[in-house]
This record gives sequence, structure tokens and C-alpha cells, in this order.
Amino acid sequence: MTVYVFGHTNPDSDAIISTIAVAELFKARGVDAIACKQGDINPETKFIIEKFGLDIPETITSVEGKTVALVDTTEPTQLPEDIEKASIVFVADHHKLGGLKNATPLEFYGQPVGSSSTVITNIFKTEGKNIPAKVAGAMLCAVLSDTVLFKSPTTTEWDKKAVEELAKIAGIEKPLDLGLEMLKVKSSIENDSALDLINRDFKDFNIHGKKFGIGQIELIDGSMAESKKPAILEEMKKLHKDGGYNTLLLLITDIMKEGSEMLVVSDDIPAIENVFGIKCDEKHCAWVDGMMSRKKQVVPPLETKL
Amino acid sequence: MTVYVFGHTNPDSDAIISTIAVAELFKARGVDAIACKQGDINPETKFIIEKFGLDIPETITSVEGKTVALVDTTEPTQLPEDIEKASIVFVADHHKLGGLKNATPLEFYGQPVGSSSTVITNIFKTEGKNIPAKVAGAMLCAVLSDTVLFKSPTTTEWDKKAVEELAKIAGIEKPLDLGLEMLKVKSSIENDSALDLINRDFKDFNIHGKKFGIGQIELIDGSMAESKKPAILEEMKKLHKDGGYNTLLLLITDIMKEGSEMLVVSDDIPAIENVFGIKCDEKHCAWVDGMMSRKKQVVPPLETKL
Repeated sequence: MTVYVFGHTNPDSDAIISTIAVAELFKARGVDAIACKQGDINPETKFIIEKFGLDIPETITSVEGKTVALVDTTEPTQLPEDIEKASIVFVADHHKLGGLKNATPLEFYGQPVGSSSTVITNIFKTEGKNIPAKVAGAMLCAVLSDTVLFKSPTTTEWDKKAVEELAKIAGIEKPLDLGLEMLKVKSSIENDSALDLINRDFKDFNIHGKKFGIGQIELIDGSMAESKKPAILEEMKKLHKDGGYNTLLLLITDIMKEGSEMLVVSDDIPAIENVFGIKCDEKHCAWVDGMMSRKKQVVPPLETKL
Repeated sequence: MTVYVFGHTNPDSDAIISTIAVAELFKARGVDAIACKQGDINPETKFIIEKFGLDIPETITSVEGKTVALVDTTEPTQLPEDIEKASIVFVADHHKLGGLKNATPLEFYGQPVGSSSTVITNIFKTEGKNIPAKVAGAMLCAVLSDTVLFKSPTTTEWDKKAVEELAKIAGIEKPLDLGLEMLKVKSSIENDSALDLINRDFKDFNIHGKKFGIGQIELIDGSMAESKKPAILEEMKKLHKDGGYNTLLLLITDIMKEGSEMLVVSDDIPAIENVFGIKCDEKHCAWVDGMMSRKKQVVPPLETKL
């Protein structure tokens, strides 16, 4: 048996590195596994993979008849179209339940922590299996990426503990310095088109039967995106129309200021403003102080207040 | 915060005892929790609860606005109607994913093992928390009940290990003797009506958009149900018609012979016969050798072969 491991579409660093980590977990258990991805890796992930000399996972599109392990999502909209024809044997995630169904009992590890890599660190520990040093280094980066250097409100004590343990395994003395270096890579957006930026960390959600698309760009200094905002807004309007979206949201997160500029294109802008208690300017923008996490601060209010 | 813990409708021993065990887990973590149930307890569960001096969980029907922990199911059809209005923070289960959605990240412990009590034993162990002796004794019984004294094909090494550990904690020298005593209680069906027997361990399933109801009665000697079969069949036909079922199945499992008599009432009996490779007699009955588990041997073929 070969287990195909993969995460959500438009993979971020945690989705890719968690995939590599779970493939290692299966190998440590004596089960053949292949790390896969749905979509290209972003510059930050490329930095991590090169830093630790790992291989980029293969691209997977169809999973019919395959045995699969999922990381970092259980949202059917973020999985291959034929996921129902796969045998899902394993899930490691730190998100809400997406409504996934499958045919047989499975391993499921969910924890309300800051990253899937934290959940997977705990699985290795519980099973008494060793994480290879270079994988541990990449996992450390994935935790710091998903928790935005522990600044995101999704951060828990478990994430800090995981980084401490992973740093020991990987022999990294100053994890936060490495995190800052990684964030600088993530913040270089000069060469990205407006569409690249929207897609950088973009996820579809079905909210009360309506299609929502929510993206996030995390920058050390949010003003770095200022000159690109008009072009981004144009692309969002096009995508809103052509993609059948009720609402498109893009968070331009300023890591140091600890807040986000929210760009809103929607069939019903007042309803969205109402959910977040904001008022958009003529450029469809509003600054939201303290807004760092799509998962914890954007999706739940949309689910409950719309 | 108070966490309301409960399992599926028509609770079996594993659903009830897992509920009690997870409420204890929350208390050990310093969180207030109440063990609840959806439906009456069966005679086997009553035996276990009395044997170990535990309290029968409270009945819960509405969960709106409550913080809840689920055990032994994630099937929306087996949960309160207003489950979407509850905040689900925890799941411990050993079944397939039922398609449940929720609004925020949660703890989820799934393992493809013989009982939810086994999964919960492992959680206590991982967290280094102690299981009270009387709860451990009841959990041991729940594992033996769900795995039919380790004869069910759902049985894993984890279940045997859990029983070993729980026996130590509870001071039970011969777990299998206790299991047999419990099975004898379960097998006394003289006082049960045909409807009682159908409902004893009955679950609704949505299979490809059609409503299925699947029940199971486990007896030390299957022939004990022989005289009740005509009345059971009549009740099944009535329930099939009045309940809007596509198909009703009842397994009368003979634990010693290691197989089940399957009673079939369906809109399409030949399709069901085809799934299981059986031919029903004029009493809608067929013996299926080796058939011990609804979860592993009934639901998956219906999902994949219908």
C-alpha cells in the first residue's frame, strides 16, 4: 500500500510541510507514502524547502482508487474533485470540520492549535517516533509561518512547545530569527502580479450555501502593498464576477502593526461591513485592528453573523 | 464553561460509557462537564452502570448555544437536530466521518479501532491523566461489548491493550469472564417486544441520498430469537413504510457461531442481496457467515456497491 499525502489547494507553507512530515510519519511506521501537493508552492515555502534540502512534493490532481492522508483541511471545496472515490485513512488538521464524509473508520488528529505541523509534532511524540532533523527544521518554520511568529490569536502554548522541541531536534538556536528571515522572503512582493498576490493564500468557503473566497497576504510592513492595491481591486472585481462568488475578501496583514487591511468585493458590502463592524472607503478597504487570522477572526463571524 | 458530552441516538454501551469517560477527562483537565445521553440505556448498559456504581447520564434533546463534546459518532442523522447551533469542541470516535460541519477548530480523536472507549483510554494515557477505577471497569466492558469479546473483525491490538490496562486500573482479574456475564444479560430477550429488539442498537444512515436503518442484536445463541422473528419482520415492514426508509436491515448476530442472520426489508431486495452476495428466503432472512460488524461489514459495501 502507498499512502498519498496532501493538503489543501493553494498550499501555504504549513500545508506543504505538514504533507512532508506525515509522509515521514508513515515511513517511520513502515508504510510507503508519497508527499503530494495541490498547486504550486509559494516563495516562502520554496525558501523553507531549499533551506533544509527537502524535495518539493509531487502535484496530484486525481485520487480515485488511491489511499490518501489529508493534512491541514477537511473542506471538500479544497480537496480533489474525486475525493469521494479515494480511501481516506488519516487526517491531521487544526481547522473546523468541513463536512467531509468517507466510507471507513480512520485516524483523525485534530487540535485547536496554531498549525497542522504542531498537531503532527504531537503525533510523532505520542508514537515515540523520531522526526528527521531537516523535516523538524521545516516544521518549525511552518509553525512560525502559520502563527505569524506567535503573533496570531490562533497561537497556543502547544505551538510554542512544538517550536522549542523542533528547534532542539533541528539544532536551531534562534527560531524567531529564522522566522523573521522567512517573513522577509514572504514580504517581497515586487515581482508578484496582482493575481499572484490574491492567490498566494486563497481559500474557497461555502458559507450558508454561498461561495466565498478569502485570501491573505502577510507582510512585515503592510504599506509595501500600497502601490499594488488598485490592480488587486480590479482583479478581485473580475474574479468576483467570473468566479460566481458572493463575496471576495483579501486581508493584507501587517505583522508588525498586528492588524489587517481588508479588501471587500461582495454582492452585499453592507452585510460584510456589519459582520466585522467596519466601514469600507471608496477603494473597498477598511483597516481592522488586531485582525491576524482568517480562520479565527474571519470565517467564524461570517458563519454566525451573516 | 460546562461541556455537555453525549453520543449517538439509540445509545449502546460504548456510546454511554464513552460519554461518562469523556466527562471524567474534562473534569481531570479542570473543566466542568456533564455526561448526557440521547435515548434510553439498554439492559447491557444498565448491567455495566450498576456493576460499577456509576450514574446514568441525563437525557439531552436540544443543544442550542451549548458547548458540546461528541463520542462514538459524527453522523448528523444521529445527533440532535439543532447540533449546528452548538459549539462542538471535542470528538472521540472510531467510525467513518459522517459529514459533520462546525464553526471553529476543535479537538478530534479518531482511530480505526474496535470501540470509542479504546480511543478514550489512549487520550487519558497521552495526557498522563488517571482514569477512576470504576470508570475504567465500565470502559473495559464497553470495549468488550463493541468488539463482541474480541470476536468482531473490528478488533485491533489497541483494543486488547486497552482492556489489559483498564483491567489493571479496575482490579479485574478475568475481563473475559466479566464480558461473558455481560453478554448473557444482553442475550436475555424474553421480555423485549419486537420493536424493542429492532431499536436495541439501531442507527439511521444516509446512503447515496437514501434513508437506511440498520439494527443489530447480538446473542450468545442466535436461535434464541427464532420465535420472535415473525413479529420482528412485521414491525420492520411497518417501520419501513411509516419511516420513509429505502431499506431496513436487522442483524441477529450469533456470537458463538460468528455470523449473523440478516433480515431485509427494502424497496429493492435484489440490490441488497447483490451487495452481500446473499439470497433471502421467504421470511426475508439470510445467514451470513462471519458477519459480525455493521460498521465494517455492512455500511462500507452499501456505500461502495449500491
